[in-house]
Amino acid sequence: MGMACERGSAFHFKLLATCPNTRARAGIMSTPHGDVLTPAFSPVGSQATVKALSPQDIKEIGANVVLCNTYHLYLRPGVDVIEEMGGLHRFMAWGGPVITDSGGYQVFSLGHLRKLTEDGVLFRSHLDGREHLLTPELSIEAQDRLGADIIMALDECTPYGEDIGVFRQATERTHRWAERCLRAHRSRKQALFGIVQGGTFPELRKESAHYVTSLGFQGYAVGGLAVGEPKAIMYEVLEGVEAYLPKESPRHLMGVGSPEDIFECVDLGMDIFDCALPTRAARNGALFTRLGRVNIKNAAFQRADRPLDDKCDCYTCKTFSTSYLHHLFKSRELLFYRVATLHNLRFILSLMEKMREAILGGTFYELKRDFLQNYRPTDEEVRMEQKKKWLKRQRPPWSEEAE
Amino acid sequence: MGMACERGSAFHFKLLATCPNTRARAGIMSTPHGDVLTPAFSPVGSQATVKALSPQDIKEIGANVVLCNTYHLYLRPGVDVIEEMGGLHRFMAWGGPVITDSGGYQVFSLGHLRKLTEDGVLFRSHLDGREHLLTPELSIEAQDRLGADIIMALDECTPYGEDIGVFRQATERTHRWAERCLRAHRSRKQALFGIVQGGTFPELRKESAHYVTSLGFQGYAVGGLAVGEPKAIMYEVLEGVEAYLPKESPRHLMGVGSPEDIFECVDLGMDIFDCALPTRAARNGALFTRLGRVNIKNAAFQRADRPLDDKCDCYTCKTFSTSYLHHLFKSRELLFYRVATLHNLRFILSLMEKMREAILGGTFYELKRDFLQNYRPTDEEVRMEQKKKWLKRQRPPWSEEAE
Repeated sequence: MGMACERGSAFHFKLLATCPNTRARAGIMSTPHGDVLTPAFSPVGSQATVKALSPQDIKEIGANVVLCNTYHLYLRPGVDVIEEMGGLHRFMAWGGPVITDSGGYQVFSLGHLRKLTEDGVLFRSHLDGREHLLTPELSIEAQDRLGADIIMALDECTPYGEDIGVFRQATERTHRWAERCLRAHRSRKQALFGIVQGGTFPELRKESAHYVTSLGFQGYAVGGLAVGEPKAIMYEVLEGVEAYLPKESPRHLMGVGSPEDIFECVDLGMDIFDCALPTRAARNGALFTRLGRVNIKNAAFQRADRPLDDKCDCYTCKTFSTSYLHHLFKSRELLFYRVATLHNLRFILSLMEKMREAILGGTFYELKRDFLQNYRPTDEEVRMEQKKKWLKRQRPPWSEEAE
Repeated sequence: MGMACERGSAFHFKLLATCPNTRARAGIMSTPHGDVLTPAFSPVGSQATVKALSPQDIKEIGANVVLCNTYHLYLRPGVDVIEEMGGLHRFMAWGGPVITDSGGYQVFSLGHLRKLTEDGVLFRSHLDGREHLLTPELSIEAQDRLGADIIMALDECTPYGEDIGVFRQATERTHRWAERCLRAHRSRKQALFGIVQGGTFPELRKESAHYVTSLGFQGYAVGGLAVGEPKAIMYEVLEGVEAYLPKESPRHLMGVGSPEDIFECVDLGMDIFDCALPTRAARNGALFTRLGRVNIKNAAFQRADRPLDDKCDCYTCKTFSTSYLHHLFKSRELLFYRVATLHNLRFILSLMEKMREAILGGTFYELKRDFLQNYRPTDEEVRMEQKKKWLKRQRPPWSEEAE
């Protein structure tokens, strides 16, 4: 446990404050490409681009860090191309911190297209059907060559709903793979995060947290949540796990990204979040406002001569009427995807800034209470979300478009 | 003829120079929303958005003016919505000059979906099949309510290849409609441009130029060119027409937008151009460089660690390698459409700036010669272009996507 933060000379996490009466934390995570102020939300840039945004956009909306998917980049353009072009930062012209994941989540989502062994996962590319073997060593090597600031250990992802025996096997394999990842990890410039698994079983989660943190990673990700289980269960599991994570290391919660979930999970002591939800929702016309998510397609917006959210400081709200956004969406205009993405991401990033300030000022509880009082995800939205997640498990999550 | 420029108090064109040994002109066209420095290229914003670009982008690439399509806006969101939202400028958040066309070009391209009478064109919307009657009066009223700075008279568009009898009838009807447009035109804030027709028949073109200019519009557009005829014929027709256009009025050539065509047509005395080619080509991966158009899909670009055109001052060339652009295009990433559009438009707009400077400095001929010496549209490109135009005549030009 004590090894955290000392492994890589360039990586450092400093916990600045924990808000009284909550577990909410504020910190600074230093990387070779700059600081990430936590709690932080990392937009997802699957294919070395946050969909519809330029690096300048990403900077202007206040993002500190971007997460890219090793699976996608490994297949296209290929690790060798990105390495030859000077690494991921230079390739995508983003000078700030970058996280890559291990590739595991996407490979496990391939369903019948992959085959698991102790050595790794044999899978067929969704692009050309060619076979590849993803091992812990290959994942680390690929991430090393891509050159992100923070990389992830390869874990086994088990779908929600399997029984405890399946989860126990997967969790134990995740632990053996974690050790192999640590052995394969040579770059001193990159921080390697271990991943805690264990599904929704408190005992397994506890064991996993103990085991993974005992190996001494520079940060810890909680995997296998937000994959279809009820929100109440996710919060409960997280509350249990958090107690076993070292205070001095950053904690990354993978796949969480709705405003209400982020509030709850910051409250439960998580530091970093990444999720495609804000960007994907934006492209589908689902936009965040202080009062909840709205569907821009709604005919009521056709003649709405106001910004979408008049308290929002994003380019979109400062520039366009809701009527115009409605028109762009109905006309399937390319500009819509960018300005909707700018808005949804800025909405989340601005919330992260407010949370951090509130944690440092000791008022996180009040901020959360006030926000959640106004922000109401409708029952229908929650059902839709669950349904989509369920559907998603039936096919690769990027089957429509990669993210 | 002498009435040009005096009709609207807010509109004014000043001819500054004509380059010796050419007909190339430099001028300033003043509108209620700012000046347009000519020769000028107007990006096309069919549906109140230049595809993939924000108003800030449009400004930053140096565009002076944007052209929107009345046909598209009339059908969606509807003239009443835009009027209620404060007019086209406010709706699309573009504070600079705006041109609208009459709607005629799109309606005539509908083929069997429209029926021509002396009163106007009866057509069925490509969106919902409902019937509308576009008359000269309705076109002017719609353009008045949209609120552009420059509006166009409704003309009859005849496909290239018909015989002279058909063209004569169409040209004469265009003249009667031009008079009706003038009578219907009441807004003193908007400049109304007349349109010269006559196909590729020198005698008809001469008659049309005489007749239309005798009515006294504030500017003149040359219509019915760049619709599939060989380039040599287009230049010849234009050379003939130009002699009959008043020097003191701006001349707009509709539908021309390749670098080589713009050079030729500036040389022949044209002031303003609008065309969807640079933006459409960009979205299809055809990008302009000093040496000619390239297809970004080409495998040779996969590992090209240089900007697309290292002399180009656009955001795209200053930020990304060609390898990254290739990756974005192959991955169908949304960012591609924006950065490719930024590049192609900036390429054209930067050329316009250089042409203007050269005209004012008396060196237009040298600029044109040097540019065309390096810039080689391949034979294949020229054939493809002709073929596409021919195919285009078989179906509405926006059948794939509106522009």
